[in-house]
Amino acid sequence: MSSEAFLSMWEQLQPVGRDRHTGGYRRFAWTSADGELRDWFRAHAERLGLDLTADRMGNQWAWWGDPDADGPGLVIGSHLDSVPDGGAYDGPLGVVTAFLAVERLRENGFQPDRPIGLANFVDEEGARFGIALAGSRVITGLLDPDRARGLTDADGITMAEAMRAAGHDPEQIAPDPQALGRVGTYLELHIEQGRALADIAAPIAVGTDIWPHGRWRIDLLGEANHAGTTRLEDRRDALLALAGVIQEARAAAERRGCLATIGKVEVLPGGVNAIPSHASAWLDARGADPDAVRAAVADIGAAVAARDGELREESWTPVTTFDPTLVTRVRAALGGIPLLGTGAGHDAGVLNQAGIPSVMLFVRNPTGVSHSPAEHADLADCLAGVDAVVAAVTDLAGAAR
Amino acid sequence: MSSEAFLSMWEQLQPVGRDRHTGGYRRFAWTSADGELRDWFRAHAERLGLDLTADRMGNQWAWWGDPDADGPGLVIGSHLDSVPDGGAYDGPLGVVTAFLAVERLRENGFQPDRPIGLANFVDEEGARFGIALAGSRVITGLLDPDRARGLTDADGITMAEAMRAAGHDPEQIAPDPQALGRVGTYLELHIEQGRALADIAAPIAVGTDIWPHGRWRIDLLGEANHAGTTRLEDRRDALLALAGVIQEARAAAERRGCLATIGKVEVLPGGVNAIPSHASAWLDARGADPDAVRAAVADIGAAVAARDGELREESWTPVTTFDPTLVTRVRAALGGIPLLGTGAGHDAGVLNQAGIPSVMLFVRNPTGVSHSPAEHADLADCLAGVDAVVAAVTDLAGAAR
Repeated sequence: MSSEAFLSMWEQLQPVGRDRHTGGYRRFAWTSADGELRDWFRAHAERLGLDLTADRMGNQWAWWGDPDADGPGLVIGSHLDSVPDGGAYDGPLGVVTAFLAVERLRENGFQPDRPIGLANFVDEEGARFGIALAGSRVITGLLDPDRARGLTDADGITMAEAMRAAGHDPEQIAPDPQALGRVGTYLELHIEQGRALADIAAPIAVGTDIWPHGRWRIDLLGEANHAGTTRLEDRRDALLALAGVIQEARAAAERRGCLATIGKVEVLPGGVNAIPSHASAWLDARGADPDAVRAAVADIGAAVAARDGELREESWTPVTTFDPTLVTRVRAALGGIPLLGTGAGHDAGVLNQAGIPSVMLFVRNPTGVSHSPAEHADLADCLAGVDAVVAAVTDLAGAAR
Repeated sequence: MSSEAFLSMWEQLQPVGRDRHTGGYRRFAWTSADGELRDWFRAHAERLGLDLTADRMGNQWAWWGDPDADGPGLVIGSHLDSVPDGGAYDGPLGVVTAFLAVERLRENGFQPDRPIGLANFVDEEGARFGIALAGSRVITGLLDPDRARGLTDADGITMAEAMRAAGHDPEQIAPDPQALGRVGTYLELHIEQGRALADIAAPIAVGTDIWPHGRWRIDLLGEANHAGTTRLEDRRDALLALAGVIQEARAAAERRGCLATIGKVEVLPGGVNAIPSHASAWLDARGADPDAVRAAVADIGAAVAARDGELREESWTPVTTFDPTLVTRVRAALGGIPLLGTGAGHDAGVLNQAGIPSVMLFVRNPTGVSHSPAEHADLADCLAGVDAVVAAVTDLAGAAR
């Protein structure tokens, strides 16, 4: 694999949705940046002569071969959206790698024994509307279409309105067994979001499972009042209450042996000289052991309740174990590379939950930093990722099988 | 005073900039709501045949008589802008009362011995650009015009851009000795922002002083990373650090016997599954004793420094003692009503600092709630406020003087 082909595609994506000040990405679902990314996907599908379709949710599919005529295919994909101020690799690396793998397979004269598809899932990060993996969750029936349509962004725009503005009919969104029926096997390559591979000096691993994880919303009420005239003893300060909850979230995670993070808060009215009347926060909690996660969230919920607040579950995803036969086979095809579990959710996990045998490949992240402009993978490892996808597809869809 | 005249003016203001959901006001400087309020001020000035001018900062002045020909006058005023989700009374009560007082004085056949002016100061609350009292501070030279022009709102719009969009030339803004030279004495009526008058069952008080107060900005840095894959011990979470600072702010205020409030925070990148890389907070601190306030801020600064963060002063206003002769005289004219100090900043304090003898009147607030949709004053007390302004002007600008 020459690095030129990789860098050429990579550089096309580089400016899209990039913040000039931080260098991070703001590629949110159904924005103009998202539209540019979809156009980019379409252009490369056309360049390779693939058949482009969109499912009811707007996820993009590009087919080499006809899954409706020749039966379910092997799909390779990921997503192109980002978290706020995200890195370049989380998502796009998998999509770029998929295109390059198809090109290489054709150069190799590979004749797949089934259709090969490429996929770009919309709104994987949930950065705009608060629910991650919305694209795969809606088509698999794990997210109710009415709930999805009614989700609002920070400006109060609903997902339905945002979709309509982007030219996608929100009335269309629904579970899509037809689109899913075309997928026999799903393969997603992703940058690792920790330092496990760096620690063992391996460029690529096969994913085994996704930890159970969930999101909860916390609401605490105070009483708006003037910061310069209200005695301390007369105050009910919602942000002061939240400060204690944030500390308890960390303490509970340490105590229970899992992860808990509060990364997003909203404080009302938000004036410098106004006592906060309402503080909202979103809790993300995960871990290898679901009972530990549940126990930590219960501890945090108790801290919220002690402050007369409310903690409400927004989503919960049980442990996802990727198809063991598939994991074993891909690992063998790649020369017995390491196995790796992860705490991050992925569309591959959703599809696997929905009964489609799925597997992931992870590319080494030298610093472990992700969801940040500093996120990075070395070029050699990215190219090793293309090699790995090519080897996996050759094995899984090879005529010799 | 009939209540009809008051209610008629009050109801005109009621819908302007009001949030339909909370019932609170969002009347921010140089927005369309602000423009409507300025038009309202202009319309009533014209109705009463007053001469309307704007100074270099855009503060509105309406004159009964000619201060350029007949020497400095007595000005009655306040502001029409609000904090986010603010109440109806903070500001507008003083402006409505001033108009009604002029009407009543004319009905009384009062012949002032000097010009009488009405004033509407822009951007008193600093809700949009973060610096309170911007209107009076710029014309008195207490806020540098370049700094004011460069202040940005939450959308990154500078004050200069916002002014230009509202039709005011930002290059004009500067200290304005000509406008200030027209003001011999300044009188501001305001709703009380505490419960002192309710506790002693008095409808009106004369202000004696404004506590020293200031604003500080706190910045804490973390490291952006994925909430699902980064071990607790590898994290540098800026929001977790801020939680400790928020608690220390309350503890320091209790220890030092002053007030300290954090009412506004910003967390980056702000994703639900991203560890916060940057947390900013604004600290408001005040108290009767400047040394206590300084000591509390030093304590909070130490807590920030211990977390490798930075605390920076954005503004500091020493104690403002209203002109003692004026305070005594107005109090006597109003029958020896109570005296009251306050922790809230006001344009009257800025003008007093700039050498213009100034005084305030406070109207009882039955619950003490302010900067909130629940802010309220009883109609009878509002009318007593008009009576008080009429009596003060009759005494201060009466021919008998």
